[in-house]
Amino acid sequence: MPLIQVDLSRELYERAHDAIGDAIHAAQIEALGIPSDDRFQVFYPHESGEVKFDSGYNGVDRRDLVLVRVTAVHMYPVSTKRTFFETVAAKLAPIGIRTEDLLISLTENGFEDWFAGR
Amino acid sequence: MPLIQVDLSRELYERAHDAIGDAIHAAQIEALGIPSDDRFQVFYPHESGEVKFDSGYNGVDRRDLVLVRVTAVHMYPVSTKRTFFETVAAKLAPIGIRTEDLLISLTENGFEDWFAGR
Amino acid sequence: MPLIQVDLSRELYERAHDAIGDAIHAAQIEALGIPSDDRFQVFYPHESGEVKFDSGYNGVDRRDLVLVRVTAVHMYPVSTKRTFFETVAAKLAPIGIRTEDLLISLTENGFEDWFAGR
Repeated sequence: MPLIQVDLSRELYERAHDAIGDAIHAAQIEALGIPSDDRFQVFYPHESGEVKFDSGYNGVDRRDLVLVRVTAVHMYPVSTKRTFFETVAAKLAPIGIRTEDLLISLTENGFEDWFAGR
Repeated sequence: MPLIQVDLSRELYERAHDAIGDAIHAAQIEALGIPSDDRFQVFYPHESGEVKFDSGYNGVDRRDLVLVRVTAVHMYPVSTKRTFFETVAAKLAPIGIRTEDLLISLTENGFEDWFAGR
Repeated sequence: MPLIQVDLSRELYERAHDAIGDAIHAAQIEALGIPSDDRFQVFYPHESGEVKFDSGYNGVDRRDLVLVRVTAVHMYPVSTKRTFFETVAAKLAPIGIRTEDLLISLTENGFEDWFAGR
């Protein structure tokens, strides 16, 4: 039940939202080992001005910002999270999303914090 | 001060956002015991394509996805959370929201993590 | 890498999004001591009806709701968080945002929960 939320420019959304969703989902399956039907993704296309960032933070040559927010149960070791982030980056690159432009933020909760239908 | 964020289709939003807001708020009062004026809800209507999900995860016959995100102070026992989720589902059903289509995700923080005016 | 997300009316967004972004960023630098290029902000302009709140909760004379969500690494003492919230309020006031109308919610994660380009 990881929940994926993606904030991105409307231009990028229009051009590639299906490919981006598939790439992130594939990274979850590969790196987190989730079932292939465990997919919950919400996209937020943004107009220019709605996303504000500094192009140089931490020495990265940032030109755009693609924000991937992940809400997941607290169960993954740090190494798994790192592998997941790298896998997301690797799978988004062929779509034209620069790794420099990627921001991923993961927030954890517990199994008891989810209700996924019945 | 629980914060409620609802992601849903624009069609459902247009048809029932007030009823959905009222139902979730009533569930908070009933199950979490919050004051009746403790209401902070933000709706995010989505176009087709922005919400991606698998219709069959965990054996649930999902046809749509209504995502309710809750940010609340860490203070509720697991049983209270479960009751809250069930109450939300029960109160949304009469509006035509199938329990199968409901995804609730709760994230906790502390009392010191809120500023609610002054 | 604090992530800032701002939900506000479209009218306020159109009128002042740059000033709001600058004010919150200045508050982060001043109160949290982040580097000046550590800026990641996403704005969500809302139409009437999408933001629902009670005008009187906790004795505050609320007329509007400006929601600032902060995701940050768990590292700030409570006193620093309080100072940060007060600094945000103080810097938004000159833009015409009433402190009564401000809702800030902070959620914490760990250093290992971020990927900020490479």
